[in-house]
Amino acid sequence: MNDGSLLSLLLLAVEAGATLAFALSGLLEAARKRLDAVGVCVVAGLSAFGGGTLRDVLLDRRPFVWVAHTWWLWALLALCIGAMAFLRARHFAPTERAMQWPDALGLGLFSASGTQLALAQDLPGIVAVFMGMVTATFGGVLRDIVCNEIPRALSDHRPYALCAFAGGWVLVLADHFALSPAAGLLLGAAVASGLRIAALLTDFTLPKWSSGSEGP
Amino acid sequence: MNDGSLLSLLLLAVEAGATLAFALSGLLEAARKRLDAVGVCVVAGLSAFGGGTLRDVLLDRRPFVWVAHTWWLWALLALCIGAMAFLRARHFAPTERAMQWPDALGLGLFSASGTQLALAQDLPGIVAVFMGMVTATFGGVLRDIVCNEIPRALSDHRPYALCAFAGGWVLVLADHFALSPAAGLLLGAAVASGLRIAALLTDFTLPKWSSGSEGP
Amino acid sequence: MNDGSLLSLLLLAVEAGATLAFALSGLLEAARKRLDAVGVCVVAGLSAFGGGTLRDVLLDRRPFVWVAHTWWLWALLALCIGAMAFLRARHFAPTERAMQWPDALGLGLFSASGTQLALAQDLPGIVAVFMGMVTATFGGVLRDIVCNEIPRALSDHRPYALCAFAGGWVLVLADHFALSPAAGLLLGAAVASGLRIAALLTDFTLPKWSSGSEGP
Repeated sequence: MNDGSLLSLLLLAVEAGATLAFALSGLLEAARKRLDAVGVCVVAGLSAFGGGTLRDVLLDRRPFVWVAHTWWLWALLALCIGAMAFLRARHFAPTERAMQWPDALGLGLFSASGTQLALAQDLPGIVAVFMGMVTATFGGVLRDIVCNEIPRALSDHRPYALCAFAGGWVLVLADHFALSPAAGLLLGAAVASGLRIAALLTDFTLPKWSSGSEGP
Repeated sequence: MNDGSLLSLLLLAVEAGATLAFALSGLLEAARKRLDAVGVCVVAGLSAFGGGTLRDVLLDRRPFVWVAHTWWLWALLALCIGAMAFLRARHFAPTERAMQWPDALGLGLFSASGTQLALAQDLPGIVAVFMGMVTATFGGVLRDIVCNEIPRALSDHRPYALCAFAGGWVLVLADHFALSPAAGLLLGAAVASGLRIAALLTDFTLPKWSSGSEGP
Repeated sequence: MNDGSLLSLLLLAVEAGATLAFALSGLLEAARKRLDAVGVCVVAGLSAFGGGTLRDVLLDRRPFVWVAHTWWLWALLALCIGAMAFLRARHFAPTERAMQWPDALGLGLFSASGTQLALAQDLPGIVAVFMGMVTATFGGVLRDIVCNEIPRALSDHRPYALCAFAGGWVLVLADHFALSPAAGLLLGAAVASGLRIAALLTDFTLPKWSSGSEGP
């Protein structure tokens, strides 16, 4: 197997993992908000495919992953139905913390794949990093907007987009120093997810905006 | 008149009907939320053109219907001004139920036209059905997001996207069994709208998500 | 310097001014909502680039301005960091009124540049005006949706999109009467911003929607 096909296989695996992770986070969030069964599927779908689809629209890439490989849509449907049946049988009430772990995983994987795809189009480093951030955050932002909340990514005072930002630069540097793209991809994803998980575990918060009057 | 031009005429009529129906639903919702006159026009426009435009962006179809035929925009403007004058003269206070009927009609028509256009691009069945759902639901989702509500399509516990889903599969089956596209289009629209209206009339609700703790 | 390059230079200046103005409005809004440092940057970026990017997606123009000229992204980043440092040092608490002035300026500049770009593609007048309105309002609408508010553009009962509408028609008329595009651009921007500022200063409100029952 040559390097090119190894990379595209790895990219596919990373995308699949990220999509699955975000679908799970959307599913848990929709369940918390007590949406109906269809709403759960739609929110899971928006979380899973929203970021990647916006990235493809911005990069003008067609066909979308869920058009080229329709089993993604079937898998999402099966995942939602299975998860709903399972959660109901186990009387499992999803908490806000439960969705943080798949979310952190998806963040790293999507930011790495988005940056990689933009670099493959020879876009400048900052744009590639930005595309990675869009891919990584937009699904979650859509999920939160549809559930009528201020997107967590912007307001929880823990680094989120910043982790995607850092992970993206790892890929740009790897590309610049002619590291193998596959290694860069894995390294970038690990950095982004790792930073996010570290922030969650240590409860690290960004410097607060505190100008003048204090308040909620 | 040959079959192709009959189909495109029918498609145009269906799109016009769906657009009108969603414009009305947006208008009533904006009035309920007491937006100003311009807000009413904008929400009506988002509801009317949002779904179709997103579909065209996803399918990479240009020009958009409201670019190719500018009278759509003029008609929307005239509709909004006329409706506002009329409603004000009649002291008509729109209720939440009032907008359900145009919404149900638009749901069926848009889901059929979206599925049909995707099938015409030789996309696989599940993707075509998905495009129909996007076309049918996105206008309403945008309308509700802009009005700062959880989209009704996801949270009212009555089948909505599910009706579009069913109607879309009718078209895919019609296509598969080589039925005339015009017949498939009408049949699919009738199934989707009919299911939605039946759900509204019988107050049929989807199985609730009830895992663990009960509560709002 | 010939007319074409003068126009494109002017367009660039207008876009830069509008982007800066909207970035500022997003920054102030995010600060008011007490988002974290990254949230401030993201909301500023959405406000600044949202309208122009949607316009480019609708008009199928690539590359986006922030892809072709990456210094825009760097400038935005620098602006946000600088502004946060400055505001914090000065204990400055941004009020709702503070963001109205950059917002009014950006409204005029973006509506003029959006209309101009659509006219350059030989689109009909009403579509060009509509593109100007999209460019001018979408950044602010995104900003308010992300901050979980009903978009100000639709609900503050002062003319907003209407100013962009009027400014757009000035450009269409200038184009029709073969005025120099540069003059039309400046005139249209001045009309749109001027109307908005006049509306703010005189507290002019649009006719209220008051049908039937009164109430919030």
